[in-house]
Amino acid sequence: MQTGFFHTPYNLPTRTARQMFDWSLKLAQVCDEAGFADFMIGEHSTLAWENIPCPEIIIGAAAPLTKNIRFAPMAHLLPYHNPASLAIQVGWLSQVLEGRYFLGVAPGGHHTDAILHGFEGIGPLQEQMFEALELMEKVWARKPFMEKGKFFQAGFPGPDTMPEYDVEIADNSPWGGREALEIAVTGLTKNSSSLKWAGERNYSPISFFGGYEVMRSHYDTWSAAMESKGFTPERSRFRVTREIFIADTDAEAKKRAKASGLGKSWEHYLFPIYKKFNLFPGIIADAGLDIDPSQVDMDFLAEHVWLCGSPETVKGKIERMVERTGDFGQVIVNSHDNIDNPEPYFESLQRLAQEVIPNIKTS
Amino acid sequence: MQTGFFHTPYNLPTRTARQMFDWSLKLAQVCDEAGFADFMIGEHSTLAWENIPCPEIIIGAAAPLTKNIRFAPMAHLLPYHNPASLAIQVGWLSQVLEGRYFLGVAPGGHHTDAILHGFEGIGPLQEQMFEALELMEKVWARKPFMEKGKFFQAGFPGPDTMPEYDVEIADNSPWGGREALEIAVTGLTKNSSSLKWAGERNYSPISFFGGYEVMRSHYDTWSAAMESKGFTPERSRFRVTREIFIADTDAEAKKRAKASGLGKSWEHYLFPIYKKFNLFPGIIADAGLDIDPSQVDMDFLAEHVWLCGSPETVKGKIERMVERTGDFGQVIVNSHDNIDNPEPYFESLQRLAQEVIPNIKTS
Repeated sequence: MQTGFFHTPYNLPTRTARQMFDWSLKLAQVCDEAGFADFMIGEHSTLAWENIPCPEIIIGAAAPLTKNIRFAPMAHLLPYHNPASLAIQVGWLSQVLEGRYFLGVAPGGHHTDAILHGFEGIGPLQEQMFEALELMEKVWARKPFMEKGKFFQAGFPGPDTMPEYDVEIADNSPWGGREALEIAVTGLTKNSSSLKWAGERNYSPISFFGGYEVMRSHYDTWSAAMESKGFTPERSRFRVTREIFIADTDAEAKKRAKASGLGKSWEHYLFPIYKKFNLFPGIIADAGLDIDPSQVDMDFLAEHVWLCGSPETVKGKIERMVERTGDFGQVIVNSHDNIDNPEPYFESLQRLAQEVIPNIKTS
Repeated sequence: MQTGFFHTPYNLPTRTARQMFDWSLKLAQVCDEAGFADFMIGEHSTLAWENIPCPEIIIGAAAPLTKNIRFAPMAHLLPYHNPASLAIQVGWLSQVLEGRYFLGVAPGGHHTDAILHGFEGIGPLQEQMFEALELMEKVWARKPFMEKGKFFQAGFPGPDTMPEYDVEIADNSPWGGREALEIAVTGLTKNSSSLKWAGERNYSPISFFGGYEVMRSHYDTWSAAMESKGFTPERSRFRVTREIFIADTDAEAKKRAKASGLGKSWEHYLFPIYKKFNLFPGIIADAGLDIDPSQVDMDFLAEHVWLCGSPETVKGKIERMVERTGDFGQVIVNSHDNIDNPEPYFESLQRLAQEVIPNIKTS
């Protein structure tokens, strides 16, 4: 089993761009040295609590500072980019990282980002994502074409599209060829249509954790879609995000977690989001409890939502998740803003990657 | 007078993306330490000889490695970007650099890049650039709006555009406010329409050197346009690009220049471009010679096109340029691929910034 990191980033809205930039590079170095496999960075243009608009710039800046960890934008919101420019950026950046790169794609789910890009709402985004990705695939194929789509246009120069063609064309297609580029898609809701789409195209699934039942549904949806198109689903490609905090003892971990950025993000930002997407009922059911979502508090979170405790306790909680949902290939820990007190957080990340995940028993 | 660096980049087409990335960061560090004021990076998606498709990623990666030098994409090709995403990227990156950033904009002039982006040719690009920049200005203004243009759309969330608006919006507008963001435009041909447009909007002019007459025309065009809109043109904002190689003696500089990346770029790549844009006649006239452009060879270049020689010789050549064209604020040296033998090149850059430019006599 591998350890991953999801830098959404969930930052205090008072942070400057420079603070978040420096903090992101520090986190990438800490995760790389601790043995994390993947480092994923969100993309949002307008969210004060998740303010990295350009994950590719953080990825480029982290490239010379890290050795083994792989990076991914998670995700580039395709309706908000010129697909030809994005295809070239992805290919070139994967070459800069000599393959330590994979690509997350998504339509965009936040109303404020949609408005910034001239959309009244998020309804039209999925169709635009599909068209954008088709054009990106054609750019990566490097065969002459010229296409005006419904939303976008792209082409590739060559004798067919440019009769007077006499210029040496740079090869900014993905490192190792298109087939070597992993594309990943996140799923949030039960029977996620995004993960069905991902399975039909052999893209990898990432489950935003919302209880065992939803997580099982994510794998089942993806694997059925894979099989429907003749692909072989592998549980090692299935990744799941969790909130995690580790310290010497359960009591110390709980205390540190509540005082950390994890506690602050939940208190001020994530509670309303979890309610909006109705993610608490599954988690309450998993805990074998019968309370109303409005009764969820920080202690409930630390006990039942976060994987919080000693290395042994967290190991047990992850193994319980394996028992209930089947094997998966990577536990992804969500990033939180611990700029003001990083050491307990870095310790938690290191112990997760070095003491917990390598010792998980899978079936 | 200031020293600038223009990393087009003019690389051997055999270089990998990683080689160019590492070389770019090394150059940024050398220029920063030598006292250069500005470091500008080109943007091309398809040109094997000028292969940096994403200047913003190099700029982000160079940010933590440098202290004083300012960076600019020169230029972002506006028709090839989503204007809302680009406006946010520019604002956020200028904040990451805490103001060590300015913005070059251009419509794009290469046929292969246009085809990649689904254009049959470069004809429609200028009109798209104008619309893109108008939308970018509106995004930077951070006032609620929603606009569907002829080519692009953008908006800004607020009570007017998002009745249920209740999300804290990140401020990714330019560092110090929009008025603190310098925008610059390059001019190539006599009576450049780009520089007229720049002057009418109070953007700064950069002259691609093509002889004294063209250079005078660049300043005159820009300053007349500035005055036509009530702005005050200042010669300190006028920058000019040159080819420069400095060593102890004139003979040594000429020998080194011809053996360096400067020589290779001209031999294999720039000769045809200078012929295509008809840039030799002005330079031949400046030299007081009467030869046909077909007779231009490497020795002619080293004598009459490149500013090549000892520090004293190069100082004299720049002062001659000042006499013939009037004052300017910055000499920008073009970048060439000296990956295989960097030391003579780094010495040349250091001597330019430290021994030559600070001692130039202006009027």
